[in-house]
Amino acid sequence: MAVEHYTHRVRVRYGETDQMGVAHHAVYLTWFEEARTAFLASKGCSYAELERQGWALPVRKVDLRYRLPARYEEELEVEVHVAAARSASITFAYRIARRSPGEEGEDGSILLASGSTELACVRRRGEEMRPCAFPDALRGFIDGVIDRP
Amino acid sequence: MAVEHYTHRVRVRYGETDQMGVAHHAVYLTWFEEARTAFLASKGCSYAELERQGWALPVRKVDLRYRLPARYEEELEVEVHVAAARSASITFAYRIARRSPGEEGEDGSILLASGSTELACVRRRGEEMRPCAFPDALRGFIDGVIDRP
Amino acid sequence: MAVEHYTHRVRVRYGETDQMGVAHHAVYLTWFEEARTAFLASKGCSYAELERQGWALPVRKVDLRYRLPARYEEELEVEVHVAAARSASITFAYRIARRSPGEEGEDGSILLASGSTELACVRRRGEEMRPCAFPDALRGFIDGVIDRP
Amino acid sequence: MAVEHYTHRVRVRYGETDQMGVAHHAVYLTWFEEARTAFLASKGCSYAELERQGWALPVRKVDLRYRLPARYEEELEVEVHVAAARSASITFAYRIARRSPGEEGEDGSILLASGSTELACVRRRGEEMRPCAFPDALRGFIDGVIDRP
Repeated sequence: MAVEHYTHRVRVRYGETDQMGVAHHAVYLTWFEEARTAFLASKGCSYAELERQGWALPVRKVDLRYRLPARYEEELEVEVHVAAARSASITFAYRIARRSPGEEGEDGSILLASGSTELACVRRRGEEMRPCAFPDALRGFIDGVIDRP
Repeated sequence: MAVEHYTHRVRVRYGETDQMGVAHHAVYLTWFEEARTAFLASKGCSYAELERQGWALPVRKVDLRYRLPARYEEELEVEVHVAAARSASITFAYRIARRSPGEEGEDGSILLASGSTELACVRRRGEEMRPCAFPDALRGFIDGVIDRP
Repeated sequence: MAVEHYTHRVRVRYGETDQMGVAHHAVYLTWFEEARTAFLASKGCSYAELERQGWALPVRKVDLRYRLPARYEEELEVEVHVAAARSASITFAYRIARRSPGEEGEDGSILLASGSTELACVRRRGEEMRPCAFPDALRGFIDGVIDRP
Repeated sequence: MAVEHYTHRVRVRYGETDQMGVAHHAVYLTWFEEARTAFLASKGCSYAELERQGWALPVRKVDLRYRLPARYEEELEVEVHVAAARSASITFAYRIARRSPGEEGEDGSILLASGSTELACVRRRGEEMRPCAFPDALRGFIDGVIDRP
């Protein structure tokens, strides 16, 4: 049984580079974020809508490994899937690659970075955020993309 | 009669540079923002507190001129003053300089950029933002730092 | 005679919002930048390539007017055209709109912001950047998109 | 024997918040970066100078755990120390706290986040970056702040 993977494309912006001549390492978290919300949206679960209804998914944990630099104007593929889901938290795993026909990787893609983010599910009341069970829309998303034995 | 000026210091962060080897041009707006809220705070007017009470000061207009690049690790002086105040909008003007004893400028400072931002005063209700008169705290700040004939 | 306009699409990222619940005002400069380099690229003039050959186009002047807020997850159209070209500088003008069928604007688009950026053309040698005439690739781009009497 | 710790202060910028009303999670990497280079500088080892001499310290690995949100205008303490140093890589560990007299923590500080970053030491030639041994300035820094049995 397969876990569903989603691929989101980003192009490295000039403002995302630093004076090392490569994409700044903090930007990868923004790409992860954009990829996972595009993944959610592709399944009819809008994160903007979740927030309007009072839920939020703050990031609790980040794990990131950089292998090769990403450069300005390159188009990257950010592959994302749900790696784990517990009662009030969900973990997404990511791989960022540059497609380069004829080069290494059986599909011609070169792995630049990989990582994961664990998000808590919270309910907001004013400035307070309390852990809570997943709202139905998110529960439906999870059931649709991961296999359970 | 003098208009009060306030000087805020920032150090150029690595992540603020781009591959041209200088601070990226969008970052200057962040420095302006930090300088004007530090100016407000120095007079007992916390912008965070204004927002908690339902007001906001969204930027409506930006005017920016870059003269010389700012580089990583340099300490800059962001000078700010109130250039204009109308019933529901306030304009701040800025000069960003690098202090460099012995170099040009009568006080040894080199002008890197200058600009202004016009902010509207709005009252928030949910997602809506309506123009409104200044709250007392902001009115007091303005009266304290600009001269009126 | 018509000046050529180019439309680039961006989707507002979560990390681009601020606690006012709208896209932070500094982000618009990043969208402008992405739009103009996509415009250049669409005509076969890669800005990455220009830099590899020793040229750069640092921003010298920014003029920006915000009319309505942009919100998370919205897809925006950034329209860009060349407003002026002199011997060693080029000015791009922009309009950012949200497409909203049935709403105001004859084409169903709502103007959120407009502005311009003036870029200098420089030649780099180490940390130095000297004004210089446009390289051929950029000259060709300009001749292809603006009308001259 | 003690490992030397360094404390760097940052104030949360408005542009660093997101619409959840807290500092965006990617910003913490920027704070880590600013803290470690301030630590280096405090020992006479300027990272800007290292780069001018051809070295660079790209981030290879990030590990980050968020415990409590950081809010706009709060002043935070970013504590940093060298957790490990190998032949061509160095690991810094961080704790971000808000000082809050009278609250939890024996010194009145509340832990908001903790993490680490592993940096490779490379030598640059054009676009290439090759692993290399630490330059003397960095070797001296390491010997000065960590204990070896």
